[in-house]
Amino acid sequence: MASSLEDMIQSSGNIVDVLRNSKIGMYVYPVVAPEFTNWRSEQAAWRNSVVLYDQTHHMDEVTVEGPDAEAFLAHVGINDFSNFSLNRAKHFVPVTPAGHVIGDHIIFRLAQDKFLTVGRAPTSNWIMFQAAIGKWNVKVSHDPRSDSRPDGKAIYRTHYRFQIQGPDADKIFEKINGGPVPDVKFFHVDTINIGTRRVQALRHGMAGAPGLEIWGPYADKSYIQSTIEQAARDVGVDLHKVGARAYSTNTVESGWIPSPLPGIYTGDGMMKDYRQWLKEDSYEAAGSIGGSFVSDNVEDYYTNPFELGYGFYIGWKKDDFIGKDALTKMKGGKNRKKVTFEWNADDVMKVIESSFRPGEENYKWIDFPQPNYASSTADMVMQGDKMVGMSMFNGYSFNERCMLSLGVVDDSVEEGDVLEMVWGEPDGGSAKTSVEPHKQTTIRVRVSPTPYSTEARTNYADSWRTKGS
Amino acid sequence: MASSLEDMIQSSGNIVDVLRNSKIGMYVYPVVAPEFTNWRSEQAAWRNSVVLYDQTHHMDEVTVEGPDAEAFLAHVGINDFSNFSLNRAKHFVPVTPAGHVIGDHIIFRLAQDKFLTVGRAPTSNWIMFQAAIGKWNVKVSHDPRSDSRPDGKAIYRTHYRFQIQGPDADKIFEKINGGPVPDVKFFHVDTINIGTRRVQALRHGMAGAPGLEIWGPYADKSYIQSTIEQAARDVGVDLHKVGARAYSTNTVESGWIPSPLPGIYTGDGMMKDYRQWLKEDSYEAAGSIGGSFVSDNVEDYYTNPFELGYGFYIGWKKDDFIGKDALTKMKGGKNRKKVTFEWNADDVMKVIESSFRPGEENYKWIDFPQPNYASSTADMVMQGDKMVGMSMFNGYSFNERCMLSLGVVDDSVEEGDVLEMVWGEPDGGSAKTSVEPHKQTTIRVRVSPTPYSTEARTNYADSWRTKGS
Repeated sequence: MASSLEDMIQSSGNIVDVLRNSKIGMYVYPVVAPEFTNWRSEQAAWRNSVVLYDQTHHMDEVTVEGPDAEAFLAHVGINDFSNFSLNRAKHFVPVTPAGHVIGDHIIFRLAQDKFLTVGRAPTSNWIMFQAAIGKWNVKVSHDPRSDSRPDGKAIYRTHYRFQIQGPDADKIFEKINGGPVPDVKFFHVDTINIGTRRVQALRHGMAGAPGLEIWGPYADKSYIQSTIEQAARDVGVDLHKVGARAYSTNTVESGWIPSPLPGIYTGDGMMKDYRQWLKEDSYEAAGSIGGSFVSDNVEDYYTNPFELGYGFYIGWKKDDFIGKDALTKMKGGKNRKKVTFEWNADDVMKVIESSFRPGEENYKWIDFPQPNYASSTADMVMQGDKMVGMSMFNGYSFNERCMLSLGVVDDSVEEGDVLEMVWGEPDGGSAKTSVEPHKQTTIRVRVSPTPYSTEARTNYADSWRTKGS
Repeated sequence: MASSLEDMIQSSGNIVDVLRNSKIGMYVYPVVAPEFTNWRSEQAAWRNSVVLYDQTHHMDEVTVEGPDAEAFLAHVGINDFSNFSLNRAKHFVPVTPAGHVIGDHIIFRLAQDKFLTVGRAPTSNWIMFQAAIGKWNVKVSHDPRSDSRPDGKAIYRTHYRFQIQGPDADKIFEKINGGPVPDVKFFHVDTINIGTRRVQALRHGMAGAPGLEIWGPYADKSYIQSTIEQAARDVGVDLHKVGARAYSTNTVESGWIPSPLPGIYTGDGMMKDYRQWLKEDSYEAAGSIGGSFVSDNVEDYYTNPFELGYGFYIGWKKDDFIGKDALTKMKGGKNRKKVTFEWNADDVMKVIESSFRPGEENYKWIDFPQPNYASSTADMVMQGDKMVGMSMFNGYSFNERCMLSLGVVDDSVEEGDVLEMVWGEPDGGSAKTSVEPHKQTTIRVRVSPTPYSTEARTNYADSWRTKGS
């Protein structure tokens, strides 16, 4: 029986086959109720009033502390650390020696020699591995995400984590804090009062709306949540808790791609050691690839930081960090660029309607509001016969009244171009448990800016008919 | 502050308004994961292979024991008890003195003087109330359904409860039992071996497929489940666990209406006492009515046993039971009849497509696979200008490739008739949290048999175009 990712790769022939047929099921936003009100109203609330995201359960947390903590993390991530003062957070991105993105976390500097990083497993695993093989004087501790299917069992975490977001958010903060909230700069941390607690708060924001991310001991979760909800009632603000179904769609409006395939399946030396260190039940080994794009070469699913819009994070002045040489070379090259794909509504209807024809083969069901059916998604985006892009994360937006996805396109593709996305998997669908039998079709997508905005849609509204058909 | 349902009725003016604007949210199938594989494949499995329903969490359990247990329950329910031997179960239906259905439970005779009943809260509450006001020598204990949103908290129940169902079910039972399963008659109970446990099993069945419902101490749940799953693997049967999203749709294929509004909001004497006994957080007081049908008279939402197909349960020979006089009068009257409504696919598409038009008003979202958005649903079904029926529970069936609902129609309506269901709520939608702002429209529905069958659909396939447009 395989015991490491490397063993699996050696015995499988092709890791893409393994990942495309993973039995792990949907990648879900766990523990939180599917809906508190309904997912349409929850989506509308983050644009029109205010929402409470419960981010307690869906992310790993890694704590790195010790005299070498800063040096270690500056070595592992591509980010500039020169301006990483206390009470600040960054979007931390590690890459492989070949320059491929592994994942990303939010990293908080809690003390001079203590950092907390929060996000999906690939970055956690890489940090832990790097600490294990290096000679850094650091202590790393790991709190993995909550069980995807608790099934009535109690869930315990180290921290609760909430985000309060939306145009009315500041009214709640002022009420909770008993006065104006400190004018914290974006991605800076301060403390605010919540009832009897003094709580750390990160100034965050989605599409320009004000917001704070707060965290503290898990035992305080109910107290903090009820205090926030009471404050909202007191100031007459329509606070919506966001359920698991709506949560994962907020990013299609804001433009962050949460799920690039970690670029760790290839490479020798340290990369091979890493794959021997990763167990068969790790995210990297047990996770799944979904979508129409099938390549024998797993590297075709990788992305680099320039493609995902992270180029400006890079700390070029650092003496060294993992991937520096590779990124230096990539910098001058032709990189793809991140875009939003706006899905043609008629084509979406065509897909749905196919599941209303008894006795006929259906297209892949588009589930609402979140059609992703794998840990990482890769749908082919075509210009004629040429693949010019990859759709990587999708979702329906009731705010925009359309299905959107995020992905990358060749440099030659322009905003406004109408391309064809291949929807569904070849050969009747893979063996993933999240996939029902289906046949493939195409959906026209219009290349739009990231983040997607109403302006873009309005401006492009006429061009569907002219360019699309 | 209101403290009983009766107080709420007195202070509200009209209880229909209260229920139509309840803030309780969706009526969910709690604790169980939304999907184990995907809801389409889970639906297909109950027809084509075998499914494991986890029914541990969504129903109340009431235990009635004591010398008067049989006499008490025969008084409370309409059912014939003359043939209620040990090791047998019945579909237990209580009605009000006016003959209106309160709800229904499955009732098991566990011993000569001990019964277990299982189902939604209205029947539990009514049993407890009747025991409290009567002079019966019975002891009643109540285990309410699990929390709808556990949010990481541990859930404890008295029993686990599973149903294994589908054409391949017997292969699993034989493997588990270590030999042929006793040839139990429908709705009779026997015991089978599951690993080291001796377990009670009810012969159940949906649409003709074999099935068993098993239960036992909650502490055994994981052991029993893993033993069943291992047996399925051993015999090479593709057992699908059914998640919360698919579960509630099985009944649109099998024809049971789970959610009639309990007929307890009107009536004096004992009924008024009952409403004073029901607290403001009870199912009856806190629950919701959803749908297009709005009447000032709450009795317009009630049903009687003849309409729901329960007329043949009635123990006419019993000296007395609650509602006997009323049912005797109703028996000769013109009662509505239960049918399946097959929704017109083009009209369903029209509704969905309305949420793809930025800047325009949308119709009520049809959520998949379960569009119900209240504890009890009442959508008007029209023949021209005349309301001739009420749609009461809906769901999409991937097996049938169509949206179906169950409800009642006037006696004059015939199978094959194409009627118009009014979809969505008037005046932009009620204040229920499960409702997003929307406008009403109509969906054509074809009156079909209950249970709905492929034969029916096939035979009627041509008539859509002729009758429908």
